[in-house]
Amino acid sequence: MKSITILGSTGSIGTNALKVIEAKKEKFKVIGMSAYSNLELFKEQIEKFNPKYLCIGSEKNAEILKRLYPEKTIYFGDDGLKLMGALDEADIVLTAISGAVGIEATVEAIKKEKRVALANKETMVAAGDYINKLLKEYPKAEIIPVDSEHSALFQSMQGSRKEEVKNLIITASGGTFRGKTLEELKDVTVEEALKHPNWSMGKKITIDSSTLVNKGLEVIEAHMLFGVDYENIEVLVHPQSIIHSMVEFVDNSIIAQIGAPDMKLPIQYAFTYPEREGSSALERLNLKTLKELTFSQVDNEVFKGVQLAFQAGKIGKTMPCVFNSANEVAVELFLKGQIKFLEIYEIIEKAMELHKVKEIDSLEVIKNVDKETRKWVYDNYAKD
Amino acid sequence: MKSITILGSTGSIGTNALKVIEAKKEKFKVIGMSAYSNLELFKEQIEKFNPKYLCIGSEKNAEILKRLYPEKTIYFGDDGLKLMGALDEADIVLTAISGAVGIEATVEAIKKEKRVALANKETMVAAGDYINKLLKEYPKAEIIPVDSEHSALFQSMQGSRKEEVKNLIITASGGTFRGKTLEELKDVTVEEALKHPNWSMGKKITIDSSTLVNKGLEVIEAHMLFGVDYENIEVLVHPQSIIHSMVEFVDNSIIAQIGAPDMKLPIQYAFTYPEREGSSALERLNLKTLKELTFSQVDNEVFKGVQLAFQAGKIGKTMPCVFNSANEVAVELFLKGQIKFLEIYEIIEKAMELHKVKEIDSLEVIKNVDKETRKWVYDNYAKD
Repeated sequence: MKSITILGSTGSIGTNALKVIEAKKEKFKVIGMSAYSNLELFKEQIEKFNPKYLCIGSEKNAEILKRLYPEKTIYFGDDGLKLMGALDEADIVLTAISGAVGIEATVEAIKKEKRVALANKETMVAAGDYINKLLKEYPKAEIIPVDSEHSALFQSMQGSRKEEVKNLIITASGGTFRGKTLEELKDVTVEEALKHPNWSMGKKITIDSSTLVNKGLEVIEAHMLFGVDYENIEVLVHPQSIIHSMVEFVDNSIIAQIGAPDMKLPIQYAFTYPEREGSSALERLNLKTLKELTFSQVDNEVFKGVQLAFQAGKIGKTMPCVFNSANEVAVELFLKGQIKFLEIYEIIEKAMELHKVKEIDSLEVIKNVDKETRKWVYDNYAKD
Repeated sequence: MKSITILGSTGSIGTNALKVIEAKKEKFKVIGMSAYSNLELFKEQIEKFNPKYLCIGSEKNAEILKRLYPEKTIYFGDDGLKLMGALDEADIVLTAISGAVGIEATVEAIKKEKRVALANKETMVAAGDYINKLLKEYPKAEIIPVDSEHSALFQSMQGSRKEEVKNLIITASGGTFRGKTLEELKDVTVEEALKHPNWSMGKKITIDSSTLVNKGLEVIEAHMLFGVDYENIEVLVHPQSIIHSMVEFVDNSIIAQIGAPDMKLPIQYAFTYPEREGSSALERLNLKTLKELTFSQVDNEVFKGVQLAFQAGKIGKTMPCVFNSANEVAVELFLKGQIKFLEIYEIIEKAMELHKVKEIDSLEVIKNVDKETRKWVYDNYAKD
């Protein structure tokens, strides 16, 4: 029986993780669970999975939970999340919260030498070097990626040595606007941007997918997770999202991971690794219906998300954090209708231009860069 | 430095193996080399690779070689091949000879606990149960498949446990006649059948590819090599031959091996396994030019090679040997213009119908079934 803490249980990854756990109750148990503000769904989940530790965004909601579940340990806010990452009774911490707040919980989990099932991109993007240093200090801790692309890369590497990996090929659906021109993207609406062809995800990540910033974040994350140079990471547009990513080895052999577009598989794999287990929760790709897989190159003139990420990644240090923080606020402003779609790129580009890179010798450095970047974007682009 | 014996050096696999070895002279050395009758090419290869042991089909040619290379040990015929399989100085025996004669050399290599790089389909098709029993008796011996599909399956399984494998998906180019109807195949010529779209191979195997008997042999071989039930082996038509095969695991994750259609990669992998090594000899798949991969189901009404193999495989015992032997002679007769294309299926089907299955308790049983089957086909279909 593995005890699992789920940070972000009411989000897209969190709810899928609970389906994985529900289907294999004899193997997995929820020991801790956090949510930001969706109290109704959180209560349903608490009734069903009965975790011992809870955490919620606000003190007010924590009080409500305390009254409802007096026998449980209840935390709140960012400090609460840090405590949730460090629960002694947990074997695995799934970090399915987006944003910089996920980094600190991950740090706590690593210090307690847990397995981190990582679904928080910011951790490795903004703080990858710091986390990698920490992993050396706590060698029993481990990070298993949950993102479908990184899980695919990780699965494709099994049974190989690190030095045999030559290239990582990250596939991209190409997002909602694949094939569009700059002219056509000038005035796209929020509604148009939120229609993703293959994956059902949160709003932020769906926009990131349409700008290909998501793919850029994945490039940086892959570099950090697998220690592969940026020169050896490629993005390949593959609209069907069937091949989730590929690893090319020194002998030119390519190993790819293929499957239904279903986050439950990489989530479960992060729980069961190095083993695999059957489960009724997991969707199956019907190969009988497989007709055609297509591939093309990223249009970097239009979708600058990937190139900007390569640029930030190659500069390194605090620059990937700026790329990520600027994008987070830009997407927020786009979703609020305060900026246009293409301004997302403009904001990231300008924030990166203005930033003076620093060494990351503590998490404080990242927190400050994150704060400054956000402030600069709000100050210059927010309309309320 | 690994010492390699190549059985069948002048064939398609053999010449590719020598290219692999030539490109990595610091790693590989040819210790023994056999050819059937192509004396001119064999002499060129001997000059270049200078192996200590030689074997050739006929005594007459062996005499010629003895005069040319008095310092070398020179064998001939089937007995010579058995001795070549058992050379003490070899680390790896590549069995790249087709036909039943390859089985005995493989048996000798297993008894000497060598690594067998297996490119002889008949070994596992006709004698799979026998070989698997032998591998248990000689646990240090190992078989690494060289066939591109089986190498792909083998590569895709690395890092997994046997019980995690759910299905094997063997891809098929579909051969020269993919999409044709029975009516259109009635009068196809040898020349038409020999045009293979992707792979440059020997004549026998190109015909087997066009009948899909090749794919059938691969199904039986996969069953024998990987211990997967026939119910869990599928054939998927994939005309581009880029995905060389796939393994579906219990959690519905599919791992595929992808690469240029180049036999040198699986050959080298069988030499270097469990490691991978870069080499100038290996072709690289250019992902930038990758546009489209298509898939479809086998037309079992027209191309009976796969279904007949499943039938033979499920019956088991000596039946796969009959399937293989009947096909070998049928293809020979087709290449000689003595039977029509579709008669290949008719011959296999009738031979299987007439055969009374026996337990394989010795190699003699297989030899006799092979002989009887061949005789029956010649007696009933040969025109000279």
